[in-house]
Amino acid sequence: MKEVKGGICAVKGVKAWGIKEGKMGLAIMLAKGPAAGVFTLNKVKAAPVLVSQDHLKKMGKEFNGIIANSGCANAFTHEQGVKDAIAMANLLAKKLNVDPHTIGVSSTGVIGRPMDMPWYIDHFEEVFSKLTSKAEGSEMANKAIMTTDLVPKSYAVEIEGGIRIGGICKGSGMIEPNMGTMLAFVFTDAKIGRAQLQKCLQKAVDRSFNMVVVDGDTSTNDNLFLIATGEAGKPADMKKFQEGLDTVCMELAKKVARDGEGATKLIEATVTGAKSIEDARLAAKAIIRSPLFKSAVYGTDPNWGRAVCAVGYSGSEIDPAKVSLIFSDGKSKVSLVDAGVPKSDEKTLAKAKKIMGNDTLYVTVELKLGKSSATAWGCDLTHKYVDINASYTT
Amino acid sequence: MKEVKGGICAVKGVKAWGIKEGKMGLAIMLAKGPAAGVFTLNKVKAAPVLVSQDHLKKMGKEFNGIIANSGCANAFTHEQGVKDAIAMANLLAKKLNVDPHTIGVSSTGVIGRPMDMPWYIDHFEEVFSKLTSKAEGSEMANKAIMTTDLVPKSYAVEIEGGIRIGGICKGSGMIEPNMGTMLAFVFTDAKIGRAQLQKCLQKAVDRSFNMVVVDGDTSTNDNLFLIATGEAGKPADMKKFQEGLDTVCMELAKKVARDGEGATKLIEATVTGAKSIEDARLAAKAIIRSPLFKSAVYGTDPNWGRAVCAVGYSGSEIDPAKVSLIFSDGKSKVSLVDAGVPKSDEKTLAKAKKIMGNDTLYVTVELKLGKSSATAWGCDLTHKYVDINASYTT
Repeated sequence: MKEVKGGICAVKGVKAWGIKEGKMGLAIMLAKGPAAGVFTLNKVKAAPVLVSQDHLKKMGKEFNGIIANSGCANAFTHEQGVKDAIAMANLLAKKLNVDPHTIGVSSTGVIGRPMDMPWYIDHFEEVFSKLTSKAEGSEMANKAIMTTDLVPKSYAVEIEGGIRIGGICKGSGMIEPNMGTMLAFVFTDAKIGRAQLQKCLQKAVDRSFNMVVVDGDTSTNDNLFLIATGEAGKPADMKKFQEGLDTVCMELAKKVARDGEGATKLIEATVTGAKSIEDARLAAKAIIRSPLFKSAVYGTDPNWGRAVCAVGYSGSEIDPAKVSLIFSDGKSKVSLVDAGVPKSDEKTLAKAKKIMGNDTLYVTVELKLGKSSATAWGCDLTHKYVDINASYTT
Repeated sequence: MKEVKGGICAVKGVKAWGIKEGKMGLAIMLAKGPAAGVFTLNKVKAAPVLVSQDHLKKMGKEFNGIIANSGCANAFTHEQGVKDAIAMANLLAKKLNVDPHTIGVSSTGVIGRPMDMPWYIDHFEEVFSKLTSKAEGSEMANKAIMTTDLVPKSYAVEIEGGIRIGGICKGSGMIEPNMGTMLAFVFTDAKIGRAQLQKCLQKAVDRSFNMVVVDGDTSTNDNLFLIATGEAGKPADMKKFQEGLDTVCMELAKKVARDGEGATKLIEATVTGAKSIEDARLAAKAIIRSPLFKSAVYGTDPNWGRAVCAVGYSGSEIDPAKVSLIFSDGKSKVSLVDAGVPKSDEKTLAKAKKIMGNDTLYVTVELKLGKSSATAWGCDLTHKYVDINASYTT
């Protein structure tokens, strides 16, 4: 497996383009093939989520593409919201002369405001006319779906047999994905049936997007689409395809965490020796969700007790007398708790502080109760996060 | 029922005093009688929590008092931590010439650092010698247990028959109490047996301290003690006693929320028409826990969709088509969602923004699915919260 350039346009059979003007944005991604999707578990689901779920159910064999917008989440918009989401799908379906059920719809932006349909209709022709399979198409679509994101997020790999998997995503705040994340679009040219595609996607999501937390708010709009164009043929080894898909999803998820609203640092928390995979995930996510620990990372304050405290309330089994805790910046590391014995001497804390000064903090908690482990990604909590969210609609 | 002055010293049979120097503090509270307690459900429990739970189990009929310190949480401090917590109880027990199991121990401060026992031993005599039943004693004990708290928190009421219930507490960050809160001490001169006392306390806590969230971090040190000195005799009406205890606990809990680290506003979220009390509590707590909603309240940004989003992921049953949402400042109010229909016109949003400018925001969500309701308290998320927690130990 190797990383390749070009984002979603690295994948054979994918065309994309997008436009962004202020807070408004429109993206189109064309790809013909079996599709899979995962969506938010929030009980208040945005209209495009409801419509896309319905389309995935009714599409028949193949999807034809996706239309996505920023500037309005089209969530909590009552009946009009559903009409608008269907109208978005129809725009693209009509142009392609296909069944609207073969089109996915995605939205991101403010909740509770109606769609500014004239703007999207006005800009549709321009975006459609520029659709391209060149790398620029992926970049433009990526930029079009950004909201508080500071950087576009894309990743693509090539596995054996020349099969490629590429994805773009957006997401920076309201991030605790539950079965999806704020708008991710992944494509592959592998030839894979729909049922297997959905299975592969669910596996990849559980160990990538579902392990990212920026603020613990599960969005109303989370969605992740995966379309397989089949143009590169069947994968020789499905395990390698899964690895490739996992890698693309994990790299995208990490980009979401690093670009968390106001973030200055990426936090990667790994919990080993848990009794079950659920325990490992609960514990790892509790660490990266804790506002106290996130603030301490921002201030390079070696207040490691907050990480142990978070594991304690996470719901995971823990025997405090067995726990070990290690901080690392990827090069040097420092042991802060060794089998239950804390190390709070000045030298150790000074070393921890130095390690926390880098742009990535690796936290490892060894529970020594079993054989399961999990990794979660998050970011620090900063003044900037408060700035961004104190005046998002005004 | 009427509010009375004097904090815990309003209660007959209570003596208190405390001393505070920088981050270090020591408080002693004497009260002879049956005792009840609730403690953190965090699996990493501080040594004083473990020791106090053991003491409550073994005390026999009556407690004699409590010794509490700030400056060190004595949590994740291995075997030495338990020895130190026992030593703290022994200090007071020896002086009173009583069984150490009749003494409660509480600590608050940084996790993972050893107790500075010489400091506490050095200051013990001074605090003990000044113990008084005058109001000043309650104030001094209250100040001695503060950490990032900006104001001491106390409340006392008198119910019929001259029975009084008074409490003090501290807590500002690491606040999502689960069966207690960061150090609360409540006393009553009612004559009530231990089993009934524990039952009354659990009821009061479920509707007060367990409904407060500052940052969603459940502390290692939460504890709430209730001692009944009996000096005012048996309550004529246990329902009125419960009301009095509820009031004291709720007022203290609200004070914790309003004094949340860096807070400028109190948020009171009430959910009505829930299918069950559990649903009502989940939904109310999700609103006041959401960092996005808390940031919007700070910036008076009428981004009400975040409140509905939080209810959606809270785990509570919700039918978006039935939901209503109202913001109020206690005087005027504005309807933002009416039976599923959002109101996002400029006039409505301007009114919401004006209401959000006051120091208390009342959020009401009507689910219209059942008969249960609950209220939770929290605060806004501010730059100051990040300031405080980015450099707590340094």
